[in-house]
Amino acid sequence: MAYTLYYWPMLQGRGEFVRLALEDAGAAYRDIAREGDDGMGALTDWLDPSQDAQHPPALPFAPPFLVDGEIVVAQTANILAYLGPLLGLVPEAPAERLFVQTLQLTIADAVAEAHDTHHPIASGLYYEDQKDAARARAGDFIDSRMPKFLAYFERVLSRNPAGDKWLVGKTISYADLSLFQLVEGLSYAFPRGMTDAASRFPRVAALRTRVAARQRLRDYLASPRRLAFNEEGIFRRYPELDREPRADAGA
Amino acid sequence: MAYTLYYWPMLQGRGEFVRLALEDAGAAYRDIAREGDDGMGALTDWLDPSQDAQHPPALPFAPPFLVDGEIVVAQTANILAYLGPLLGLVPEAPAERLFVQTLQLTIADAVAEAHDTHHPIASGLYYEDQKDAARARAGDFIDSRMPKFLAYFERVLSRNPAGDKWLVGKTISYADLSLFQLVEGLSYAFPRGMTDAASRFPRVAALRTRVAARQRLRDYLASPRRLAFNEEGIFRRYPELDREPRADAGA
Repeated sequence: MAYTLYYWPMLQGRGEFVRLALEDAGAAYRDIAREGDDGMGALTDWLDPSQDAQHPPALPFAPPFLVDGEIVVAQTANILAYLGPLLGLVPEAPAERLFVQTLQLTIADAVAEAHDTHHPIASGLYYEDQKDAARARAGDFIDSRMPKFLAYFERVLSRNPAGDKWLVGKTISYADLSLFQLVEGLSYAFPRGMTDAASRFPRVAALRTRVAARQRLRDYLASPRRLAFNEEGIFRRYPELDREPRADAGA
Repeated sequence: MAYTLYYWPMLQGRGEFVRLALEDAGAAYRDIAREGDDGMGALTDWLDPSQDAQHPPALPFAPPFLVDGEIVVAQTANILAYLGPLLGLVPEAPAERLFVQTLQLTIADAVAEAHDTHHPIASGLYYEDQKDAARARAGDFIDSRMPKFLAYFERVLSRNPAGDKWLVGKTISYADLSLFQLVEGLSYAFPRGMTDAASRFPRVAALRTRVAARQRLRDYLASPRRLAFNEEGIFRRYPELDREPRADAGA
């Protein structure tokens, strides 16, 4: 039976982390809000208290959320924790599964911070109305936070006793797919900020290449199902927010 | 065997969500960085790449993290997902456990946004150097985001088929403890912003009272183990950031 993903239809956003897992596993799924107005209405009905009677009690706060028969699961990292065993995208050992989820939640933190570079004051206001604060926050992100996150994932890869191919154990997990997406997004949003990232974080860069070369993901990334990055999503290319890191930067 | 919690010793912070679960369950645990310099050194060693050789590969990005024998688990919500079954703080049904974690991650989002009201530009800079942006962000949080989160939890309580006593099912879960802490923190940081919260979100207010009345939590909250809220933590009382919601506010 197909999974049903509920996410905004015009952007990669947080939904993309779920799409990558479903696509890499070759799972059957509906991306319902991209099917048209009825699908979009099905999504917004979940967020409308006046429609609660038609839904089970496990209401989401926001997309993405996933419906699988009787199961409703929201929050990107939680959706992936649910799907991981079903899609073969986690190791078997409980301690390793916990670590995959630790990493996923750390990626989620990095994603939230990347978002806030263009919306540091309020997600409900226009970017144009918070541009000065955005420039300050983006500068700190480039100098301090982004290298701190990337250095952490580099360190985790270097410490994996099974080798530095994947983050945890000897097979790919959903956290590897999500790290690929994080680096893709950062490279889109901050081409200057990421200038020397591949040489500073070579294991992370190699993982990105390795993920992109997987057959099903190559097909997906070349397909119309893969939306392009754009300035509606989390990772936005605003040239005024991008610059090279300061010489003394780096966590 | 006792759990070992690693968290900063001078603030409630994210560690408090873990402490509340351990305390409510009456679990034996060490709050290691509060034991003195050696404990604090044990914490900072985990964050120091030059000390990696003494640690297993499941490195945390930041506190809090928990060590339980061979298990290392980081990220607040992930620590609670691990502890939940061990402490009897989750329902039995898998679908309900998923929903508890959905709620916990939504609380985590609210916590991150509460933090960013005083640090909208950079967590590494002083509050004093980002006060104007903080005032703008706090205003949006009070008018828009805080009521949106509280309305969601109110709605979840009202929709629980087992009654509106707890968020999921008929027994307390770690998400209930965390919602208590969120409301405590918001009430500390924004007494004016929360002025009419108890009447607008009565089920959330009742849950807060219900949690505070639990015997082991009462003992904990009155003990020196419970740190006071202060201006080093997530929830800070800066009067200049607090005001009543605008008349037309509310999500």
